[in-house]
Amino acid sequence: MLDRLQTFARCIAPAILLCGSGVACATPEPIHPWTLEDVLSIPHVTDTALAADGRTIAYILRVANQAADRTEFELHITDFRSGGDKVVSRSLWMERLQTVPGQKAWSVLADQGAGVQLYRVDGAAQMSSIIVNPETVLVGSVDGGEFGYGFTGPVRFGIAYYDWSPDGRRLFYSQLRQGTEKDGVRHDEDVTRLTLFRRRGPAVTARFFVKEGGKAPIGLADVPPSDRVGRFLGGMPAWHSDALDFSLQTDDLNTPHVARYRWHFGDKTPRRLDDEPTLFSDAIAGPGGGNLFVEGEGVAARLKERQPGGKTRDFGAFNATLSDRRSPGHWLSPNRDFALVAVRYPLEGRYGLVRIERNGGIKRIEVPESLTHCSFAPSVAEGVCIWEGIARAPAFVRVRTGDGKISALQSLSSRHEQITPLKTEVRDLVNAFGFLARNRIIFPREYRTGRRYPAILVTHSTDADDRFGALDLQWDYPVQLFAERGYVVILANEPHASQSALLKKADADRNMCGGETSPAQIQRLGWFNQIESFRSIIDALNSDGVIDADHVGIAGYSYGSQIANVAVTQTKLFKAASSGDGGFLEPAAYRTHRCAYKAIFGGPPGDPAASANYTAFAPSYRARFARAPVLQQIAEPHETAIDFHQALRAANVAAELSLYPGETIASDETHFFHIPSNRLAAMTENVQWFDYWLKDIPPPSGLDGNRRERWEAMRALMPD
Amino acid sequence: MLDRLQTFARCIAPAILLCGSGVACATPEPIHPWTLEDVLSIPHVTDTALAADGRTIAYILRVANQAADRTEFELHITDFRSGGDKVVSRSLWMERLQTVPGQKAWSVLADQGAGVQLYRVDGAAQMSSIIVNPETVLVGSVDGGEFGYGFTGPVRFGIAYYDWSPDGRRLFYSQLRQGTEKDGVRHDEDVTRLTLFRRRGPAVTARFFVKEGGKAPIGLADVPPSDRVGRFLGGMPAWHSDALDFSLQTDDLNTPHVARYRWHFGDKTPRRLDDEPTLFSDAIAGPGGGNLFVEGEGVAARLKERQPGGKTRDFGAFNATLSDRRSPGHWLSPNRDFALVAVRYPLEGRYGLVRIERNGGIKRIEVPESLTHCSFAPSVAEGVCIWEGIARAPAFVRVRTGDGKISALQSLSSRHEQITPLKTEVRDLVNAFGFLARNRIIFPREYRTGRRYPAILVTHSTDADDRFGALDLQWDYPVQLFAERGYVVILANEPHASQSALLKKADADRNMCGGETSPAQIQRLGWFNQIESFRSIIDALNSDGVIDADHVGIAGYSYGSQIANVAVTQTKLFKAASSGDGGFLEPAAYRTHRCAYKAIFGGPPGDPAASANYTAFAPSYRARFARAPVLQQIAEPHETAIDFHQALRAANVAAELSLYPGETIASDETHFFHIPSNRLAAMTENVQWFDYWLKDIPPPSGLDGNRRERWEAMRALMPD
Repeated sequence: MLDRLQTFARCIAPAILLCGSGVACATPEPIHPWTLEDVLSIPHVTDTALAADGRTIAYILRVANQAADRTEFELHITDFRSGGDKVVSRSLWMERLQTVPGQKAWSVLADQGAGVQLYRVDGAAQMSSIIVNPETVLVGSVDGGEFGYGFTGPVRFGIAYYDWSPDGRRLFYSQLRQGTEKDGVRHDEDVTRLTLFRRRGPAVTARFFVKEGGKAPIGLADVPPSDRVGRFLGGMPAWHSDALDFSLQTDDLNTPHVARYRWHFGDKTPRRLDDEPTLFSDAIAGPGGGNLFVEGEGVAARLKERQPGGKTRDFGAFNATLSDRRSPGHWLSPNRDFALVAVRYPLEGRYGLVRIERNGGIKRIEVPESLTHCSFAPSVAEGVCIWEGIARAPAFVRVRTGDGKISALQSLSSRHEQITPLKTEVRDLVNAFGFLARNRIIFPREYRTGRRYPAILVTHSTDADDRFGALDLQWDYPVQLFAERGYVVILANEPHASQSALLKKADADRNMCGGETSPAQIQRLGWFNQIESFRSIIDALNSDGVIDADHVGIAGYSYGSQIANVAVTQTKLFKAASSGDGGFLEPAAYRTHRCAYKAIFGGPPGDPAASANYTAFAPSYRARFARAPVLQQIAEPHETAIDFHQALRAANVAAELSLYPGETIASDETHFFHIPSNRLAAMTENVQWFDYWLKDIPPPSGLDGNRRERWEAMRALMPD
Repeated sequence: MLDRLQTFARCIAPAILLCGSGVACATPEPIHPWTLEDVLSIPHVTDTALAADGRTIAYILRVANQAADRTEFELHITDFRSGGDKVVSRSLWMERLQTVPGQKAWSVLADQGAGVQLYRVDGAAQMSSIIVNPETVLVGSVDGGEFGYGFTGPVRFGIAYYDWSPDGRRLFYSQLRQGTEKDGVRHDEDVTRLTLFRRRGPAVTARFFVKEGGKAPIGLADVPPSDRVGRFLGGMPAWHSDALDFSLQTDDLNTPHVARYRWHFGDKTPRRLDDEPTLFSDAIAGPGGGNLFVEGEGVAARLKERQPGGKTRDFGAFNATLSDRRSPGHWLSPNRDFALVAVRYPLEGRYGLVRIERNGGIKRIEVPESLTHCSFAPSVAEGVCIWEGIARAPAFVRVRTGDGKISALQSLSSRHEQITPLKTEVRDLVNAFGFLARNRIIFPREYRTGRRYPAILVTHSTDADDRFGALDLQWDYPVQLFAERGYVVILANEPHASQSALLKKADADRNMCGGETSPAQIQRLGWFNQIESFRSIIDALNSDGVIDADHVGIAGYSYGSQIANVAVTQTKLFKAASSGDGGFLEPAAYRTHRCAYKAIFGGPPGDPAASANYTAFAPSYRARFARAPVLQQIAEPHETAIDFHQALRAANVAAELSLYPGETIASDETHFFHIPSNRLAAMTENVQWFDYWLKDIPPPSGLDGNRRERWEAMRALMPD
């Protein structure tokens, strides 16, 4: 299935996965180590779109423009010939790159100076506008702006979403619409909502349109401000020959329910399709005319298709996630003899493709690491993916779906190919609760058997995958630099819910505000279960003589910050922690997370039935048990993070709270830091923090001139 | 001591204080009742400054400009002759009106279109600038602004404070200075501070200057952003013949400590005066060359002077507050043979003057109600005050300090003099804890003995004074309209601390983060003590057959909202509550009020040593015990108010949370609502709220079209 590219990778580039398994590899000389700038400039592909001829691809990169100190997007077109990669445009915002059906052209939402509008890019790399809405709306963490999920600087939006009908005759799109500059009197829940985000703008709604050829666009539906499905997913449009389906959100759950509507091209009236709203999920077209889904857990999981007429077809054992958001995609061959689906193997943390034949066969198309961001020509016979791995810089490869043949095309970053890969290893461990989790180990550059190293465990849900410098895992934790500086880096996934009905039920109950799983059990199957996996890998590496178990740190942002905060207040596993832009699980977040907190704690902090659960679990309520210094790097002055910080300080536990600034006083950093100078400073702070607490290396004075003094004062106060 | 004016008041205007005490008064016909607009347009004098000749006064009124829908300030000059009152200027901001020493002219900080600058106003009412700082700083509850305490719309400040040397030769002033537009990385306490106010602007510091004649100004000191004394009180300048003293804040307590500095005109260098910072207090010059103060409590309180050399002189029994912020002022006669001090009698809630002779005599200068906002000519022989009372519209009177003679000058509002006064009464009661508090009762317009009326108790610390429509008590609770609509209105003061060493110690310990007074005792002597006073007056009026004790509501903003929230969660005294822009005592305010919470609760909510105190006292933790519907009207989406609201709703207790908007989406209403349309809407909402829950009158649909539906749905869910 693999060709000369893999052979090349095995011997020329040191594919450490193999070396780590006992295969001897020659280490090329001289060593080219990682630098901070290398980490900052890891290419992050956000979209790919292969032209119908299969020869030319357009793709979008999210890049750090250090000179302008901002995150940008680059639109590239390449035909994979030498020198054939052109940057078509640079923009503050680009997303949703698609091929225009039936044309050798692409469409993309981009800010070319007039706010985000819909553009066409032809084969000659010329851009022209398709739809322009001059009434743009400011989006971002900025005064006067609508909160955005794109994690960039503030951007003005004219068009928020679009989708072509398969025949290219119709265009669905959505516009944001801004309310008045003066607010009215607000009541009750409308007030609470204002506390969720720090910055505040006019109320923003969305409106859906359909446009056919040169005719005037027709309004389909108005979407209220609270509808995330409508706002960010354009109502999940699904095209039929005579109608368009779209969805509107019906509740405020983490995974919300949606109501589906059908708009007939004939009578141009939307009609509700279902009696009851259904839990949001993407529809993956199967070869039998129905939708594919995975049912069951672990070895019992099976791929199935719910076919028209209600019958379900079983394709056999299959434990993978279909069209995972980290590498989405699903295609149907023109004559429906097979479906192709981008998949993620949850227990392995790898990405690939699966071809599902109408006759029932399932074929995996894969590499030892991951195939991501695939795009296929309409025939679905051939396409292009990115081959990447934790120690393999990303490159485009051609994928033939008939025989699974994969062939080299073009590197995405020669800079990163030149870095000498670090040695890595996979460790699958079953924890004390009986659940399996995979860890990926990055060894120090100068690792010698027989010597013990300090270690840093980095975690973010299930993002410790076989990808190259995955931003959603490593955030501003420069794991490659940690290894260069002599740390064993443990990239740790939580035990994946797909292995157990119990875990899946706990997840579902949490989404639905509680249920049969008690708060204690939700806490145990979630955070404590993760911690047991951390204990397993630390114990294993300690037993093997690889790490010094008395000098282990933990780092995680967002979801990862929850577990870091719980870990340091419930165990003595870690001697330092870096917790990024989090604070969930603090009592102060109850008011905006009542559903989840009902499940996790059993009610609000003041409820006698719930208070014991807060006492037992809320990190700030347990700060006096912590003995690990905690750095919190935040993008906004979250009350939750402040509460934890104050509680640690009150207990004399070393704690640093660092708020990174926005572009101006009127805007904030975003959850993913998007200002390159902030990213460099935050990565540096992390290196210094762990160096200080795990290796006793005093920091330089820091940005504000007194970092060393401040940290040394904290150390002097530490209990024990 | 009083003259024909008082006689006039007794018979022509029905001085209800006397009628209520059993003196029969003829009620003039026809009745002219209060309207909502009458309440909105009550004149609020903020400054008065009498010219040296004693014949002409300048004064500032805070007024509601309904046409422009904003709060404005009017600068008037009057010589008290008919038609002699002129409006010199209208401005978004005016304060600190003074006479220029040695000139028939005034100086004032005003925004005349170029931000707040220092202006001179001459006897011909011509304005000219004295100091203009073109680098203005935006202040107010607005994006990009520095938080302001003025409770108006956003204003730009050039000059923030000023003071003349007594000889008029030197001018002290302060400028605000704005930091960069881009913030740096912030750490720890600098992050916490950002949660205190919703809007955010660049860091703002202040700088003090002294200017002498035409010479260039000299910088005295730089004041950090956290220094409230420096920022808002200009460092409390005190002039000597050869030097200027000023103070800088040294801690963040509610009543802070200050360090004093002396800047000699000769060497132009500031020197620290004291070794230890001292608790902030105003210096009131006494006739013996020292400072006056009151020592002791209740009947044991005595007026004293700490004289140069350290000796203390005792002037005798004296229970009053010197130069209270609600009616400040103190003067020294040119030859120092007497001092004159504006005073407040705390147990009576009345204001007057006291003349303290160098030979030891103390003479009270007073009216049956209050003398406020006094200003005196340099001779201190004669001055002008405002005579006002709860049922007496304010008017200027001339005050002769030698014999205490008071004579009529000019009304401040003919509109309000035309309203037929409501019947009022004073009730002093000792509560079950043994502490005295004064209540003022306003009777329903159509009060008939023998019939019981529903009642509304309005409270705000010690603000239930004998003043006309005091904004700091009645906020947006239109007490006059309540009476017109058939409610007995109880204006209730808390038991004043000045009566008891125990109460004063509890207050002091609260300011100093706790001490010998335990949290339980702090709670008892504070909030529960107030509630016992409320219980006393309700019992008394019920025993007298005046009120229906089953239909009593409570209303209070800010400090008053604390007691309203405690009252409804700890007692069954009230059947409805309106709680204005508060939320203090909620666990969520811990992070920004750690000192006070240490005293009140013993620590943070997660501290096992403190948690029982939260369980016992935090209103949201006791919401399930409430049976009174609670309306919260707020100026910003305070997390604390939201928490209480959510907790009430979770217990099915009727609760409405109403956020009133700012001028634009980029600004907020202020703690005192400053947008006239909001004030009218909030007053209307209060009337409807109490009418619904106490008198069963359904509200109209309300601003958002479904008030009635919403309230009826709440009522249907109420427990019991």
